[in-house]
Amino acid sequence: MTENRKVLITECADEKGLVSRITKVCFENNLNILSNNEFVDKENNRFFMRTELDGDFDEQLLLTELSAQLPEHALQRLVRLGKKRIAVMVTKEAHCLGELLVKSYYGALNAEIVAIVSNHNVLQELANKFEVPFHFIDHNSVDRVEHEEQLLECLAQYRFDYIILAKYMRVLTEKFLRQYRDQVINIHHSFLPAFVGAKPYHQAYQRGVKIIGATAHFVNEDLDQGPIINQDIAHVDHSYSPQDMARVGRGIEESVLTHAVHKVLEEKVIVYGNKTVVFD
Amino acid sequence: MTENRKVLITECADEKGLVSRITKVCFENNLNILSNNEFVDKENNRFFMRTELDGDFDEQLLLTELSAQLPEHALQRLVRLGKKRIAVMVTKEAHCLGELLVKSYYGALNAEIVAIVSNHNVLQELANKFEVPFHFIDHNSVDRVEHEEQLLECLAQYRFDYIILAKYMRVLTEKFLRQYRDQVINIHHSFLPAFVGAKPYHQAYQRGVKIIGATAHFVNEDLDQGPIINQDIAHVDHSYSPQDMARVGRGIEESVLTHAVHKVLEEKVIVYGNKTVVFD
Amino acid sequence: MTENRKVLITECADEKGLVSRITKVCFENNLNILSNNEFVDKENNRFFMRTELDGDFDEQLLLTELSAQLPEHALQRLVRLGKKRIAVMVTKEAHCLGELLVKSYYGALNAEIVAIVSNHNVLQELANKFEVPFHFIDHNSVDRVEHEEQLLECLAQYRFDYIILAKYMRVLTEKFLRQYRDQVINIHHSFLPAFVGAKPYHQAYQRGVKIIGATAHFVNEDLDQGPIINQDIAHVDHSYSPQDMARVGRGIEESVLTHAVHKVLEEKVIVYGNKTVVFD
Amino acid sequence: MTENRKVLITECADEKGLVSRITKVCFENNLNILSNNEFVDKENNRFFMRTELDGDFDEQLLLTELSAQLPEHALQRLVRLGKKRIAVMVTKEAHCLGELLVKSYYGALNAEIVAIVSNHNVLQELANKFEVPFHFIDHNSVDRVEHEEQLLECLAQYRFDYIILAKYMRVLTEKFLRQYRDQVINIHHSFLPAFVGAKPYHQAYQRGVKIIGATAHFVNEDLDQGPIINQDIAHVDHSYSPQDMARVGRGIEESVLTHAVHKVLEEKVIVYGNKTVVFD
Repeated sequence: MTENRKVLITECADEKGLVSRITKVCFENNLNILSNNEFVDKENNRFFMRTELDGDFDEQLLLTELSAQLPEHALQRLVRLGKKRIAVMVTKEAHCLGELLVKSYYGALNAEIVAIVSNHNVLQELANKFEVPFHFIDHNSVDRVEHEEQLLECLAQYRFDYIILAKYMRVLTEKFLRQYRDQVINIHHSFLPAFVGAKPYHQAYQRGVKIIGATAHFVNEDLDQGPIINQDIAHVDHSYSPQDMARVGRGIEESVLTHAVHKVLEEKVIVYGNKTVVFD
Repeated sequence: MTENRKVLITECADEKGLVSRITKVCFENNLNILSNNEFVDKENNRFFMRTELDGDFDEQLLLTELSAQLPEHALQRLVRLGKKRIAVMVTKEAHCLGELLVKSYYGALNAEIVAIVSNHNVLQELANKFEVPFHFIDHNSVDRVEHEEQLLECLAQYRFDYIILAKYMRVLTEKFLRQYRDQVINIHHSFLPAFVGAKPYHQAYQRGVKIIGATAHFVNEDLDQGPIINQDIAHVDHSYSPQDMARVGRGIEESVLTHAVHKVLEEKVIVYGNKTVVFD
Repeated sequence: MTENRKVLITECADEKGLVSRITKVCFENNLNILSNNEFVDKENNRFFMRTELDGDFDEQLLLTELSAQLPEHALQRLVRLGKKRIAVMVTKEAHCLGELLVKSYYGALNAEIVAIVSNHNVLQELANKFEVPFHFIDHNSVDRVEHEEQLLECLAQYRFDYIILAKYMRVLTEKFLRQYRDQVINIHHSFLPAFVGAKPYHQAYQRGVKIIGATAHFVNEDLDQGPIINQDIAHVDHSYSPQDMARVGRGIEESVLTHAVHKVLEEKVIVYGNKTVVFD
Repeated sequence: MTENRKVLITECADEKGLVSRITKVCFENNLNILSNNEFVDKENNRFFMRTELDGDFDEQLLLTELSAQLPEHALQRLVRLGKKRIAVMVTKEAHCLGELLVKSYYGALNAEIVAIVSNHNVLQELANKFEVPFHFIDHNSVDRVEHEEQLLECLAQYRFDYIILAKYMRVLTEKFLRQYRDQVINIHHSFLPAFVGAKPYHQAYQRGVKIIGATAHFVNEDLDQGPIINQDIAHVDHSYSPQDMARVGRGIEESVLTHAVHKVLEEKVIVYGNKTVVFD
């Protein structure tokens, strides 16, 4: 992966000729367009484009020239692709953290895990293996507000792009989420919107479903209601206990979360309203 | 398919030695066990077995000898495998009916469609092509009770094993369902329990999900809550309109419904409580 | 589906600024770009673009203006989207033909089946149901060359865009394929390149594979070697006989073929060399 | 998982009453049958049964009583379920080894990795993290026979049940495989029998396939021809370079291998001829 690649994200009201105008400016700035994806939400008349660029150019000049071509209130971001920094929050389950650690270790995930924060100390040893700072912040003997203050204080020591909730089993407050808006990614162990809340595998077992699934989503103030990035399922049958479902489900959770994080790190995910655009 | 095959379904409280005792009786009656599937629901201590048999034997004698070996209140059924008879109810959409007609026509579904009943006349022509009686029973200008009386009267002319709701878009009453308990199979156009009720593809679009699905289930008095037989999904993305989702969804609906009906016709599905056992 | 939609396919040597130049010409001709997909084959420095257009415009003028902007030897096609015409060739198996007939009947496939040609008369009755001309051209008592002459003569009566081999179980000669270059689509009952040639399900059974599949591809002179459009698989296990594999396989064949034909009819498939570009 | 569970594997010529006789003996020995799976290969008249047992019993007595009930030349194995011991062989790629290490670390794979042997030293550091002995046995400057002697000598220090080739990129000789018959499991990076041999992703890219896959199989003397345990695929399109295919393929390889190893460790896989029976 060339670390010289940059991504231009454009979001604005749709109108004729946008692709033509944007690509023309890029061309005139002597940029090479490596790939280009666009999407128009016709219901809301909204235009989205992700353009992957290569070449040496004056970033400020490019953005200025582009904004002259775009409708009012257009949003533009120019981001350098390359290794991102992530913080991970966990409780007791090792599978998602294990996947993130091992994949970032050998380079399958283009990210450095800068810290792991947990309300239990179970996963300390796993973190140590990969020499990632691990912070055990006990939620017992403090109230919810105080606990979250400690979390925020701890995270404030680090510089990172995203927080991954890799089976962090507590609800975060509005305050926390306001501070890290569109930066917190959760893996929920069901195919949302089914089985919101606690113990989804038990709910699935009780309902007698024939598929179980997982959902990676950005977290907002409404529990399990945030913008969905990725979902997948596995087939189960009557012989699966809730424990069997959880076992199979963990495999889905890992792969759904990893895939979602990969897409986010590649700047292929745009949040808008309660949805996401996820480019190929 | 040999039409001599019979299926023995046993359901009873679990206890040690059941498989041994049942297979021993079959063996002593000179039967050939073609295949045998069992399942024990440990939570409820319930034993289920499906035994596929071949050979000439005295059915009554076999059942008598078997019941001497089983716990009290055991349920036993001995069913001849072979072509079943089904009635189909539809509204306007052709895809599920088309699939059932064409597959039963060339023998991929071991069933004869004896009648099609609809609250619209849109699919009359399709039914005619396959020379299946089509009954248009208009729901306009009559109330719900009266409409259902007409449906029941119409169906009463026919002898059939199951009623397939192949996108019949009206809710059936308790009276109807009591009469055809565990005989009515519906295809719902979402992965239940998500998106219960009307317009699931619009609900899915609004929620921004990345998968859509379909669920085949037995119908009981609770809307979209009956025992699930089969479910599957397809992946979608931000670019799918509700109409695109519906188009892709129709392919899933067809295959999920056909697969469920196939399993039921092969006597591989046992309903218990609000769940199903579906043997391989 | 608006029948006013047109698709512009551009294929040429890659160079900087192509997207910008093409979309600019479209914009200046007052066209609305409904969607735009491009692909650059970097290995061969080849540029492909599919642009879906809406609006009233002078087609000849547009193409002339565009070609002034493109490198030498560029290929351009402007095609009206809308109902296409297809001929279908079959042998004895009903499932793929049944799927095409029923889906084109109720509009899920945007095509009219203008004729069915077969080397057996088994499927005559099915064709009759949908009032499609059926031609039985016996391959017994004539040699291969003479048989194909008769096929070609028969097809020559009809005007169509594509020939679908919906389980036509004979090999076509170079002469036939030269005449209908890039117009003949076959469904092969294995995941190519595995199990080329006859009886792939028996080959699969002998090998003990755990998946079976199907491949839709354009047909060229090399048996089962043409450009692949679409493939899919299903999971099987040790308990599957070759007949069971064939039964499950037929479901995959149907859906893989239908999906491929759908993509081709939407002008989303570009053949280049021995490969295809298949846009979303 | 109760470590008291035992598995009885029975393989013999098929005849009437086998299930009855085997389960009767188990019942009379006061055993609890937790689950029972059987399969009859009708083509070869071969009977296979896997019976999961719980309870205290005299193993030798049970086997003696059982063998009195079975046809001549019957094969029987009684195996205690529980943690198995595996050796892993690798070359340079980390993903499969990483998956095995992390999953066995937190208990998702019921196995202890007793040693890692490699013809490169790239993965030494990863092995160290999990404190597993790592042996770098260079294949340069020795011939193939000598290199394998060193491998065998190294492995001989350890006691293990299976050798997992987790992307070990060299061919093993007959001598090696004779010594570890039905104990060596490989992950091949294609859906066999397609793309045998080297660089399957490049082969897949050249052929323009729309799916890529992976195959876990027991290794025998014929390259990539051994009994298949598990296979799966992912969908790709024209935009995938061989490197992209390899990246996506690694995810499939990991999950296919892990699933196969899991099945083998649970004693759910029986090798017969060039095939496997893999029970649910």
